[in-house]
Amino acid sequence: MKMLINVPETVVADALRGMAAAHPELTVDVENRVVVRKDAPVAGKVGLVSGGGSGHEPLHGGFVGPGMLSAACPGEVFTSPVPDQMVRAAAAVDSGAGVLFIVKNYTGDVLNFDMAAELAEDEGIQVAKVLVNDDVAVTDSLYTAGRRGTGATLYVEKIAGAAADEGQPLERVAAVAKQVNENSRSFGVALSAVTTPAKGSPTFDLPAGELELGIGIHGEPGRERRPMMTSGEIADFAVGAILDDLTPRNPVLVLVNGMGATPLLELYGFNAEVQRVLAERGVPVARVLVGNYVTSLDMAGASVTLCQVDEELLRLYDAPVSTPGLRWGM
Amino acid sequence: MKMLINVPETVVADALRGMAAAHPELTVDVENRVVVRKDAPVAGKVGLVSGGGSGHEPLHGGFVGPGMLSAACPGEVFTSPVPDQMVRAAAAVDSGAGVLFIVKNYTGDVLNFDMAAELAEDEGIQVAKVLVNDDVAVTDSLYTAGRRGTGATLYVEKIAGAAADEGQPLERVAAVAKQVNENSRSFGVALSAVTTPAKGSPTFDLPAGELELGIGIHGEPGRERRPMMTSGEIADFAVGAILDDLTPRNPVLVLVNGMGATPLLELYGFNAEVQRVLAERGVPVARVLVGNYVTSLDMAGASVTLCQVDEELLRLYDAPVSTPGLRWGM
Repeated sequence: MKMLINVPETVVADALRGMAAAHPELTVDVENRVVVRKDAPVAGKVGLVSGGGSGHEPLHGGFVGPGMLSAACPGEVFTSPVPDQMVRAAAAVDSGAGVLFIVKNYTGDVLNFDMAAELAEDEGIQVAKVLVNDDVAVTDSLYTAGRRGTGATLYVEKIAGAAADEGQPLERVAAVAKQVNENSRSFGVALSAVTTPAKGSPTFDLPAGELELGIGIHGEPGRERRPMMTSGEIADFAVGAILDDLTPRNPVLVLVNGMGATPLLELYGFNAEVQRVLAERGVPVARVLVGNYVTSLDMAGASVTLCQVDEELLRLYDAPVSTPGLRWGM
Repeated sequence: MKMLINVPETVVADALRGMAAAHPELTVDVENRVVVRKDAPVAGKVGLVSGGGSGHEPLHGGFVGPGMLSAACPGEVFTSPVPDQMVRAAAAVDSGAGVLFIVKNYTGDVLNFDMAAELAEDEGIQVAKVLVNDDVAVTDSLYTAGRRGTGATLYVEKIAGAAADEGQPLERVAAVAKQVNENSRSFGVALSAVTTPAKGSPTFDLPAGELELGIGIHGEPGRERRPMMTSGEIADFAVGAILDDLTPRNPVLVLVNGMGATPLLELYGFNAEVQRVLAERGVPVARVLVGNYVTSLDMAGASVTLCQVDEELLRLYDAPVSTPGLRWGM
């Protein structure tokens, strides 16, 4: 498998150098692998820190900026960052109002953020944590006890980010983040396997003519394999799986997310089918986002995330945001 | 090759339905295949209309909105839209101040926009045209006499769009667009072939272990094939090819553009190498944009575009823009 890289060993460092050159509004510490809002710490504001393995860009580094994350810690590809990175990020963004760690539910991430929280508290930084576990595909998986954290991470980071930028206190920002996670569900499909730079070949075998329903963002196995389905059939299955687990009483935010190698033309077409299913099921839609946001390197496929929102969460979602990966209102 | 579609015949219509659902700020006429700013025509403002084959998203429909295009006409995949679409778009956006057609240099697009200009003028709409032909890879190509139009289209649409939104007259907006094109150069590489829905298999054969230098955005042949190169070597070659043809006396805008299936992680790493080459060659950089903007469906690869800007062009580039694919300042 050909890649646009120098050598696998420097992929993350090279990307951070390139990100620094493209985004002077961010402070990118290439050596220590921390991406921080240039204006951090913002007086009186709760800091939001997230992170995880690289390979899911723009998540998380591309969501750093006003209205969203204060800092992100990129690990090696598909590998948790280490506690040192997280503590460094927390120290860089803490204004005294405390820091919220946003943690996708993968065992390595959970352990390392737990340790980082203890270390940061030893340094006098108040820390709260929220676990994102929105993927309804499977309970327990290759790298996870319980449900995996996937597309809802975008909503948690966006909505809690808006609450933090308004000056809400740590306890309240953490409660908002938890509320978003509890009201979000995701389901993903893969049309092709993912290739990591270190391995250089597909990390799993997906036969021609089959797709994997319920794929994880590291290529972890899902629910089942089936002969290739149409966009409409996939939308029926994915939205159906979500609505088996969530009965929205309020309108939903809809994320139709590309895994990396699926053209935007196809994602928009898939969105049309997702909207059809939601209409058939009587689910009112508040906002729709279509694009590559929580990716899995060069995997072909897509995921659907629904996030049920009340007026307050919708107001925070609509609030201005200015990051490399998500921007509106400023 | 698996795709997230229903049937090849409805790919463009499905995508437009999905785009309409995601972007209530646009008027998407699915039947007639025209995407228009909802507030068009804007009194006193020159209308900007572009279009071309589908498969290059977000170009062009994703660049419709305040500060950029007034309307876009998507053709079938890799196929020019027809004059009827262009005339309809022109009529929808003309406020009496005239319309600028932005045309990528492919034979079908050129002929159809020429015919549309005549038809629109027959209806009393004043039309000017600008041809985008920035690709230095080859002179004459599979679908082109002269150089192909690629990445610079983004700069022409953004900068002329800002001039139009300021209320500049048609003659001036057209002159700005031509100036941007004349000061832009691009060069692209492919690491994998592209698969169109209609064909369902790669449109050309690129052996494992080789890349194509100078690829077109429809998979047209470039300059040569070589054994796979590192990101640094590719940056040397691509930027070198551009600087053989353009000697910037002013700072440049840099677009590091993904062809569709190359992960953002790799694009950022490639940007680091592009910036290294520009620094070595003494070319000052004003702004950098990294992402999938002018794509070729599921092709893996990237292109580099440089656009030399004086203070006025840079001011117009920095002006607010609000479209699905490009957004800042509003």
